[in-house]
Amino acid sequence: MNVTIINIGDELLIGQVVNTNASTMSRLLTAAGMEVRKTMVVGDIYKDIWDAVDEAMRESDAVLVTGGLGPTKDDITKKLLSEYFGSELIENNMALENVERIFKSRGYEVTPVNRAQALVPKCCEVLNNDLGTAPCMWFSHKGRVLVSLPGVPFEMEWLMRNRVIPKLQETFNTDIILTKNILVQGIGESFLSDLIEPWELSLPKNVKLAYLPVAGLTKLRLTARLPHNFPLSTFHFPLEGLYSLAGKYIVGEDCETLDELVHKTLVERGLTLATAESCTGGNIARLLTAQAGASSYFKGGVVAYSNEVKESALGVKHETLIDYGAVSEETVREMAEGVRNRLGADLTIATTGIAGPDGGTAEKPVGTVWIAVSSATKTEAKLLQFGANRRQQNIDRSTNQAFAMLIRLICQKD
Amino acid sequence: MNVTIINIGDELLIGQVVNTNASTMSRLLTAAGMEVRKTMVVGDIYKDIWDAVDEAMRESDAVLVTGGLGPTKDDITKKLLSEYFGSELIENNMALENVERIFKSRGYEVTPVNRAQALVPKCCEVLNNDLGTAPCMWFSHKGRVLVSLPGVPFEMEWLMRNRVIPKLQETFNTDIILTKNILVQGIGESFLSDLIEPWELSLPKNVKLAYLPVAGLTKLRLTARLPHNFPLSTFHFPLEGLYSLAGKYIVGEDCETLDELVHKTLVERGLTLATAESCTGGNIARLLTAQAGASSYFKGGVVAYSNEVKESALGVKHETLIDYGAVSEETVREMAEGVRNRLGADLTIATTGIAGPDGGTAEKPVGTVWIAVSSATKTEAKLLQFGANRRQQNIDRSTNQAFAMLIRLICQKD
Repeated sequence: MNVTIINIGDELLIGQVVNTNASTMSRLLTAAGMEVRKTMVVGDIYKDIWDAVDEAMRESDAVLVTGGLGPTKDDITKKLLSEYFGSELIENNMALENVERIFKSRGYEVTPVNRAQALVPKCCEVLNNDLGTAPCMWFSHKGRVLVSLPGVPFEMEWLMRNRVIPKLQETFNTDIILTKNILVQGIGESFLSDLIEPWELSLPKNVKLAYLPVAGLTKLRLTARLPHNFPLSTFHFPLEGLYSLAGKYIVGEDCETLDELVHKTLVERGLTLATAESCTGGNIARLLTAQAGASSYFKGGVVAYSNEVKESALGVKHETLIDYGAVSEETVREMAEGVRNRLGADLTIATTGIAGPDGGTAEKPVGTVWIAVSSATKTEAKLLQFGANRRQQNIDRSTNQAFAMLIRLICQKD
Repeated sequence: MNVTIINIGDELLIGQVVNTNASTMSRLLTAAGMEVRKTMVVGDIYKDIWDAVDEAMRESDAVLVTGGLGPTKDDITKKLLSEYFGSELIENNMALENVERIFKSRGYEVTPVNRAQALVPKCCEVLNNDLGTAPCMWFSHKGRVLVSLPGVPFEMEWLMRNRVIPKLQETFNTDIILTKNILVQGIGESFLSDLIEPWELSLPKNVKLAYLPVAGLTKLRLTARLPHNFPLSTFHFPLEGLYSLAGKYIVGEDCETLDELVHKTLVERGLTLATAESCTGGNIARLLTAQAGASSYFKGGVVAYSNEVKESALGVKHETLIDYGAVSEETVREMAEGVRNRLGADLTIATTGIAGPDGGTAEKPVGTVWIAVSSATKTEAKLLQFGANRRQQNIDRSTNQAFAMLIRLICQKD
């Protein structure tokens, strides 16, 4: 069963907006066992949309279209689809009630322009859009399906998860897809691949493995494909072989990112955290505080960018900075211990390094980073050497390294 | 002169990678005065690539293709293009020297697999890829052009800017496009549009205006289209009318973002900054420190997430927190002044608020945010009320509001 995606919008063709809709839809469809054959972006031009729809309907089992559903006059998808399927626009009761419900909840009257959002081609089935006024429309045509969705990302994603994918699965009797993420850190992708090859070769044919490396972390994603009537409780991913070969590099399961894993771990264990960041410049704090509920464990942090702040706000000794420099094991340890004393948390993270592109020396080139993690009983520090020309990448890799070291400290793992 | 973009790669169709190449290319082409008609993504499948290339070559003046150029066997673009244009693969001297140069600089020997990267269709012109081993290939065919680029984003972008766009401009004698950004803050998009309508209507026909709103900021982008031989020194964007109508809302020109504007302003004026962040959780610090050279003005910051840290690290009075609460004008002022005293900077920013989704009360609902900026002589505080259900959006809007207030304080503008 294969799918073509068509995203409509001039803003995509001028590069004003990154087309995250295509990747979100592709990811959700792939995770649900469907194959995306092609994606296209066209502008708000009748002929271009028509040609794209016509081509896709000849080549794919299902065609998903986003955009062109607003109440303004340059939004032409509904008229075009009505004509393409030889239908006519009529007012749909469910769609109108939805528009009225949403306007009422915001305290507005429904204007004629907004009422027009309830007009849909007679031949389609409306799938209710709980989050917005633009309708989601399902067309069945000669054994194929076309679905038109609004282009607003959060409405589109909600509709995909709650309306479109379940109905596509039912219509096409697709396989069940199960996935499992395993976060691996401290080993390069190619070494990891060699190390776990015996396990990979032993995987059953319906389980696939993908490597997703990002900023010093490798996410292993296992995907199992099962018949649509398979009894799910009897299925388990075969992970024993992976753990016996590479257990020391595995920092967590079932998370997409290390900041999510740290968040989950600290909440579960009731431990508090404070941070002392120099080269990561607040990136560690903002990744944790971007997650709802961070206040239950995150006390705060110091972004100690200058040496004065390392001294005044963290209590790093002046002599340490003079004798060993700001980027040194001695300094990073005093930062980690200092922030615990000052901010009073169970655990701390400290980073100091030269993110680049300037500031390097022969002895400490750009990309030299010291990271420490500390508890009341133990402080671990580590030297890292990253590349010279990638400031943001150095920040991201330092951040992931710090998160992984913290997880290892909490779980008493080296 | 119009362009179709084809991005090749299975990783795009499964949604593992967001297709930023399409938006980067679209943005650069649009900025250079070319029209992107359509973009397509296809997988590493011979027939699908062939059909996409064939369709695009019939419809567009220029076709840009990314991906499928690596040395591994699933990368098939070169073979396909050679066949499509009726040519044959030969070793290209310039491409081989480029591979050898790059391997030498990394201290590796060129293996036969890598040497194969210098094979290109005989009929193409190689545009040198200074940043990587995959060649960029330019095909002329019946008055149309196809360019094949590597899919690695930074190589692609460098080639677009330095090789492909200049050559397209020369080949098609395209117009010159000049752009100017104006950052506007403190007024909603629709009010701004009404306010500056007289100026907008007076713009010459070759100057277009676009509104790019993001997180409480509106970027106005002016684009002028001039004939390719126009004497550039005689052209000026007509901004007087805009400033006389909306000058009080304009915070800067010629930057893409407010963090870039703050960075530039502080470097130019030789002023130092420190931050005290609660609800923004380090986001302000990390946006500034993400820019090379931030150490010349950024002393550091405190992420004061808990009340204890607001007291211990910033010196906010215990009674203030008890009497007025953490989210209050009194607290945010003490945070801004406290971080200046503790960290010793010319200017400070402080934020405190309820980012959500939890933590709101009837009196202070989710989205209530206080922001202060402070110099040695003046502290300004402002209350903002954002929406309830968007944690990240509240963080981003608070961040932009803080940056705009800082710019106004520096420039003595209300």
